[in-house]
Amino acid sequence: MKDTPMYIPTFEDMLEAHARIQPYIRRTPVRTSDYLNELTGAELFFKCENFQEPGAFKVRGASNAVFGLDEEQAAKGVATHSSGNHASCLSYAAMKRGIPCNVVMPRTAPQAKKDTVRRYGGKITECEPSTSSREETFARVQAETGGDFVHPYNDHRVIAGQGTCAREFIEQTDGLDAVVAPIGGGGMISGTCLTLSTLAPDTQVIAAEPEQADDAYRSFKAGYIIADDAPKTIADGLLVPLKDLTWHFVSNHVSEIYTASDPEIIDAMKLIWKHLRVVMEPSSAVPLATILKNPDAFKGKRVGLIITGGNVDLDRLPWTL
Amino acid sequence: MKDTPMYIPTFEDMLEAHARIQPYIRRTPVRTSDYLNELTGAELFFKCENFQEPGAFKVRGASNAVFGLDEEQAAKGVATHSSGNHASCLSYAAMKRGIPCNVVMPRTAPQAKKDTVRRYGGKITECEPSTSSREETFARVQAETGGDFVHPYNDHRVIAGQGTCAREFIEQTDGLDAVVAPIGGGGMISGTCLTLSTLAPDTQVIAAEPEQADDAYRSFKAGYIIADDAPKTIADGLLVPLKDLTWHFVSNHVSEIYTASDPEIIDAMKLIWKHLRVVMEPSSAVPLATILKNPDAFKGKRVGLIITGGNVDLDRLPWTL
Repeated sequence: MKDTPMYIPTFEDMLEAHARIQPYIRRTPVRTSDYLNELTGAELFFKCENFQEPGAFKVRGASNAVFGLDEEQAAKGVATHSSGNHASCLSYAAMKRGIPCNVVMPRTAPQAKKDTVRRYGGKITECEPSTSSREETFARVQAETGGDFVHPYNDHRVIAGQGTCAREFIEQTDGLDAVVAPIGGGGMISGTCLTLSTLAPDTQVIAAEPEQADDAYRSFKAGYIIADDAPKTIADGLLVPLKDLTWHFVSNHVSEIYTASDPEIIDAMKLIWKHLRVVMEPSSAVPLATILKNPDAFKGKRVGLIITGGNVDLDRLPWTL
Repeated sequence: MKDTPMYIPTFEDMLEAHARIQPYIRRTPVRTSDYLNELTGAELFFKCENFQEPGAFKVRGASNAVFGLDEEQAAKGVATHSSGNHASCLSYAAMKRGIPCNVVMPRTAPQAKKDTVRRYGGKITECEPSTSSREETFARVQAETGGDFVHPYNDHRVIAGQGTCAREFIEQTDGLDAVVAPIGGGGMISGTCLTLSTLAPDTQVIAAEPEQADDAYRSFKAGYIIADDAPKTIADGLLVPLKDLTWHFVSNHVSEIYTASDPEIIDAMKLIWKHLRVVMEPSSAVPLATILKNPDAFKGKRVGLIITGGNVDLDRLPWTL
């Protein structure tokens, strides 16, 4: 993507993506909990993207990229770097099409995520857990394989694919006052903005971010991209910085970014496990954590939360550590 | 129930129950996993009764009993004994109708289950963890309160209510070769037999039981009820024995009872948490454990599994103990 001018995906790109990927993804269910509604004073709807077969919404964008390749490029396969879920979802999509997938992944990524990538036939090259090491290692891998670079989020095909989630969400709920999604690199938030700015322009898009990796929050307040190298938070899916394409959507369409501390994220995660009875990652708990922290902003509203992923190491749950 | 002649609930009772309880229960979703299908060689469908608001299928039978009471009895409320989920579900149903609920519960029941009962306004009286102590304590509580005894399973209203789950399951899957459900006292299995013997008579009903509480298996083989006092298994929802009404359905309609060891149950539980990404109890993992143990009985078949409950102590997961 580096050498091409920035292409901003459109609502029509999202519709095309949805038609292209529907055979390979699930229309995930929306769950509710009377208990969590009482606790927050809002009417909460949880879109369970953790119920995608490879366990994360990222199968949407990955499938859109993989199934949009021409035959010549498809033969060389795809390549990416990712802290986890994009890696397994791109591997899954590549497996479904029967093409190679090379993945650069931090050596510190959860074992469960590495296992999933390998189960789907992805080939892992490990790097250090920093943005700089990741990008350097990836350049080498990509030069060797010729695989098409599918960036985890700063890719118009990926963003158009992620936008299909918000389309289903609006259909399933008959409308929402706000959608709250976690923000790392901003792929899901950008896809949500892309879809809702046309389909439901009155629905606010709110991003939720870990305090300990709050570069998007600081960027949003500053008006330009601020990136951290190697932030640390329990929400390990949200370590990466915004890029030009996702910054476009965040700066133009996001209403607010709220943050939550790691202990608040863990508390929210446990609440969801206990009352929604779904297995999801710390990253997916950040939206509920920010709603609990800012109750007045949500009270009385119909609020959609995207449970982005469910690949968690069951032997190392944060509240048992 | 002790002094009334045994009334065998009918298919029409189940239909009436469904109409009565629909405002108070959820039509729970059915989940699938490509991974678990490959692992077993069968096509598996999981009915997520853990997604009921109080976390278990037992809200069906409990709601049928509670909302079927006349006003005079309703004023005195309901009473029961239960190792957990029937207690919380009866409390939930009673709260919805605004009537008292008294519960006798073993002092060893998981804290999460006690918390849930109290959250729904149920009043707990603790007993020793044995069938004999439970029945003795209950007789006292019931005499004091005059609450209508809603037995956890040996009650025609409860069985008719549980049968509504199988009706939804058949509608949601367009038919199944077999339904596998856990068996403790036999309420869910009896309701499943009641519904499927009319609605889908070619669908086998198979019960799954912990080896360490295998009284139903031994009863089934012997041809008469065998009860254990105070069995011990990780599947703490399945400790109670069959009674005359559930024995009627088990002996007449169940095709087979399979058993699984506690380590096999824990392995199956972890597989479901990891690949279906739902939070469920050890008891609910017994069906998958028996399928993994008897693959030839299920290979190539469309098999429904009922995930009966999701109230688990997240601080004491069996694989972290």
